[in-house]
Amino acid sequence: MFTVNHRTYNPPAQPVVVICLDGSADEYLDCAIARGRMPNLLKMSQDGWRGFARAAMPTFTNVNNSSIVTGVPPSVHGIGGNFFFDTASGEEVMMNSSKFLRAETIFPHAQRSGRKVAVVTAKEKLRDIFASGLISEGGIAFSSEKARHAVVETHGIGDVEELVGPTPEIYSGDASLYVLKAGVALMKAGRADFLYLSTTDYMQHKHAPEEAEALDFYAAIDAEIGRLLALGAVIGITADHGMNAKQRADGTPNVIYLETELVSTFGEGFRVILPITDPYVAHHGALGSFAQVHLPAGMDAVKVRDWLLKRTGITECHERATAALLMELPEDRMGDLVVSSARNVVLGRTPAYHDLAALAGALRSHGGRYEEMVPLVFSSPLNEAYAVRASGDVRNFDIFEITCNGTR
Amino acid sequence: MFTVNHRTYNPPAQPVVVICLDGSADEYLDCAIARGRMPNLLKMSQDGWRGFARAAMPTFTNVNNSSIVTGVPPSVHGIGGNFFFDTASGEEVMMNSSKFLRAETIFPHAQRSGRKVAVVTAKEKLRDIFASGLISEGGIAFSSEKARHAVVETHGIGDVEELVGPTPEIYSGDASLYVLKAGVALMKAGRADFLYLSTTDYMQHKHAPEEAEALDFYAAIDAEIGRLLALGAVIGITADHGMNAKQRADGTPNVIYLETELVSTFGEGFRVILPITDPYVAHHGALGSFAQVHLPAGMDAVKVRDWLLKRTGITECHERATAALLMELPEDRMGDLVVSSARNVVLGRTPAYHDLAALAGALRSHGGRYEEMVPLVFSSPLNEAYAVRASGDVRNFDIFEITCNGTR
Repeated sequence: MFTVNHRTYNPPAQPVVVICLDGSADEYLDCAIARGRMPNLLKMSQDGWRGFARAAMPTFTNVNNSSIVTGVPPSVHGIGGNFFFDTASGEEVMMNSSKFLRAETIFPHAQRSGRKVAVVTAKEKLRDIFASGLISEGGIAFSSEKARHAVVETHGIGDVEELVGPTPEIYSGDASLYVLKAGVALMKAGRADFLYLSTTDYMQHKHAPEEAEALDFYAAIDAEIGRLLALGAVIGITADHGMNAKQRADGTPNVIYLETELVSTFGEGFRVILPITDPYVAHHGALGSFAQVHLPAGMDAVKVRDWLLKRTGITECHERATAALLMELPEDRMGDLVVSSARNVVLGRTPAYHDLAALAGALRSHGGRYEEMVPLVFSSPLNEAYAVRASGDVRNFDIFEITCNGTR
Repeated sequence: MFTVNHRTYNPPAQPVVVICLDGSADEYLDCAIARGRMPNLLKMSQDGWRGFARAAMPTFTNVNNSSIVTGVPPSVHGIGGNFFFDTASGEEVMMNSSKFLRAETIFPHAQRSGRKVAVVTAKEKLRDIFASGLISEGGIAFSSEKARHAVVETHGIGDVEELVGPTPEIYSGDASLYVLKAGVALMKAGRADFLYLSTTDYMQHKHAPEEAEALDFYAAIDAEIGRLLALGAVIGITADHGMNAKQRADGTPNVIYLETELVSTFGEGFRVILPITDPYVAHHGALGSFAQVHLPAGMDAVKVRDWLLKRTGITECHERATAALLMELPEDRMGDLVVSSARNVVLGRTPAYHDLAALAGALRSHGGRYEEMVPLVFSSPLNEAYAVRASGDVRNFDIFEITCNGTR
């Protein structure tokens, strides 16, 4: 039993595995289940529980993974996007580091309570946040992307490739499968009994749920879930965000170039921050359904907000303080206005800033409200208290608590 | 081929059946499919298409049924709720009549084009809207609720009980099953080949997706779907809105009494309109996640809006013109402010106005954004153009067009 950020966790003796299937809109599961490609997930939903959870806004990977590993919203843990604009220094600051995290993760506490903790992520960008305080306690944290570079001193493990196999290509479905395979191998070797496995959404950005590539991917994911179940794990599965086609009726990307439109309407001096932007852009072109807008000095925020709300494709626009409340965001890392866009619309800066040619295939992305509802699946039935909670406004970052305390 | 409200419909020769499964959040289908209770729906999603569509706001029955039968949003057809407050007359006006409908339904056009149209609804309240212009063209329109009262002159049919069976109790799952059974009977008798079947959400208000009563209900629904498929129909299925538990962690109703709070903060003179209110309130107590607020004369709308946006549980609040744009609502039938609430929160007027004791069991309701995404299922694969459309921001009121034109 351990307490972190005002939540108490009382995990069962059996191995606990929480999986974040990056970008897994519920349709991916529906399509694969209907075609008989996810028998283990189907069994989980029959024997355990399946429903929806609400993710944290903006519906991005770092934001939601940070929430899942801390159990608190971005307003508390401080990671409200992949980066933010620091108005004091005038610099755009990447937040791929635990130094930006304002809350402890549950992992060092789980390790100190006697569990063998292992955290595996597809993308290296998340490793530093996940590893925070864990390695010195004896835990393990590494990424698929840099599996071959893991060393005991900084990762708690030095033989990942011997244990799991060769380091996969990051722009691939294999990068995600490697995460689950690592979980299986660590459990089999008796090296972990409290695991967080977090995949990447390269496949979901590229493929719609009914496409053969997506179905094959989820079938392979399901096989690993089966291996984890066979090893006796209690499993909780959720996603960091959903995924939608952001395209016009003719299949072309449906982009609002926010900075261009604001400058042409109100004049120079706008800075639009797209917090989806990270070192990995080939699959989404840094286009998502969420933006922070920094206004030029002296600009009337209400005037700009009201103009934006009339623009077709914009679904929400709030001033900083209101957005901080409604979207649980850290006020000191926000713009003057927060904007999110429709199910089929992404927000860009200027046409020159985004390389649409680099997009392989149709544009599928996330970041807004229409990627907020994500799957929540448990391998065991929920006890009475948590069944009520799961049917209410349950969050994806409740998953460790429910997997530990709520499964019978 | 016929054109209504700028959409052209080109139905196949085979019978066309569109079904609106009132209150069917996707979880109901997931739970029933996982337990093997909806083999025909499963087959539709394997052989045809299954995904999500976006409903019209507010996510109420009349609003969305009116959109489905006209193919246009509430801003065009005028039905933005079950009733509205007419500021000119000072009266609250029920909109259970086609005289409030500002757009034609597709049905008289389908009938004139040579189809045999039949429209069946569970609740009598929708019949008048559905029947608009249809009976004089030779079509059929009746409700489960008043099945025994249907006569040829006004309903296009006089022998419903002989054909389908005795009139069911309106507060029951049978009222919905009767709708589908009527569709089967009409098709079998050769009396209809273009059908709209619209159920009621009594079961979904009362039962969560995993409860035995819900599973049995969906299994019975599925059996009728199987009969329609066996009769050679091409079928499109959607819902008018989803359904969420609106309760606290202890299972008690989670209500914000808006009128009470506004009066105690800003003084007398507020009128809160809850457009879920209709003659059938036993299953939801007139509590939903959407409200129209009429302000006292001289009250600062922006001040009230900004106060409401800070109230935990409120997720959206807009002035009339902005709400009309963002939610596609008819501006002349709205309040000064439009409010919607969280996944687990409903809006009430005053504690005295709502009879919570009349609620049988937990409070499950709808009306807000968290009931906006609904299932969309077709019995046949979609052709290329409509497959792109269905993967974008497809609407539940696209269903007749896609069923007619988009199924291969």
